[in-house]
Amino acid sequence: MKKAVILLSGGLDSATTLALAKEAGYDCYALSFRYGQRHAIELEAAKKVAASTGVREHKIIEIDLRAFGGSALTADIAVPKSRSTEEIGAGIPITYVPARNTIFLSFALAFAEVIGAYDIFIGVNALDYSGYPDCRPEFITAFEKMANLAIAATTQPIRIHTPIIAMNKAAIIREGLRLNVDYALTISCYDPDLDGVPCGRCDSCLLRAKGFQENHRADPAQNT
Amino acid sequence: MKKAVILLSGGLDSATTLALAKEAGYDCYALSFRYGQRHAIELEAAKKVAASTGVREHKIIEIDLRAFGGSALTADIAVPKSRSTEEIGAGIPITYVPARNTIFLSFALAFAEVIGAYDIFIGVNALDYSGYPDCRPEFITAFEKMANLAIAATTQPIRIHTPIIAMNKAAIIREGLRLNVDYALTISCYDPDLDGVPCGRCDSCLLRAKGFQENHRADPAQNT
Repeated sequence: MKKAVILLSGGLDSATTLALAKEAGYDCYALSFRYGQRHAIELEAAKKVAASTGVREHKIIEIDLRAFGGSALTADIAVPKSRSTEEIGAGIPITYVPARNTIFLSFALAFAEVIGAYDIFIGVNALDYSGYPDCRPEFITAFEKMANLAIAATTQPIRIHTPIIAMNKAAIIREGLRLNVDYALTISCYDPDLDGVPCGRCDSCLLRAKGFQENHRADPAQNT
Repeated sequence: MKKAVILLSGGLDSATTLALAKEAGYDCYALSFRYGQRHAIELEAAKKVAASTGVREHKIIEIDLRAFGGSALTADIAVPKSRSTEEIGAGIPITYVPARNTIFLSFALAFAEVIGAYDIFIGVNALDYSGYPDCRPEFITAFEKMANLAIAATTQPIRIHTPIIAMNKAAIIREGLRLNVDYALTISCYDPDLDGVPCGRCDSCLLRAKGFQENHRADPAQNT
């Protein structure tokens, strides 16, 4: 059975990506990070999603990106609230964490090399969240090329899979519902309270709500 | 004054690279990692080198690459000793840490983005240590290309500088002596004792000794 490393945040996108990797027949090794994010409660969601979907192993790596700061997610900067769709789509938001996906993919590459996996899945999305430069297809292509030069010669090339990169949030949720992803286990909020209750007003909450609305479904995480 | 991020291990190569960055006129931000390496004592050397050379800031980041293992430096695998020059040059040694330079450069990229630096220096070497795939020029070129797609649009491109990549150990030491690098502060050994005394027989010790011999100089770290 082919092995794959799946970056798993506890959010809706990566839960769907994991389900798609499972459907594609991979033996899945999930990888999450406690990186100093203000919404570290998402790791509890990641554990539940990993257990519910069924993975071979789930590693949580500790790295402290607060050492650099520079983002509303890792520094004492307020998370923007109640922005319009136009505002969300304009420019790079302050929730962008410098080089985060580069760092996450680098760790995924190390994990893949050690377990002998050639496939890495990441739930980046270039439509809803086009503001993050490290979600663009050209970044992923460049990372994949670099990855194949970074590690010991392998019998087959490393591939970075981005199955939801061209989907909007509604389409991602539709895929997930088809695959019976339990979205009640996931959390998308950037600024939840200490009990993990979503704020309902950050960009991530707003995009999630819009995605469920467009599917004419209630968000199952709202009632848990 | 132009800012640069310098990866600093506490070894001879990165100390020389830092001196070259200083000579080139950069305001230097040093970055080191406590990554679960068996020779973590090198971080004490890194601190001394940073202080002695003069840097704006020296950050030490904690990451645990023992979570993946797969190397004599991060797992319970013996460090090879007393190998010949031919043995050292043949194949990828067990001291190779999967994706380590990719991970280190990714953190350097985050640091650079936050402080507004466009230059990153890394003391990789493709001659003495050709066994590590992530020391090859083509890897560095691919990383640089990826880095320029990973981060927020900048006013000038990110550059990865590898000033010693084509030098052998003797030439690196010659450059360092010219720049008054205090090699007494550095440690290269992969397997030092608890007091930091080098084993004298690992690949890194042997290459270092050869480099000083070829310069007809005593290694100043031997008497400290």
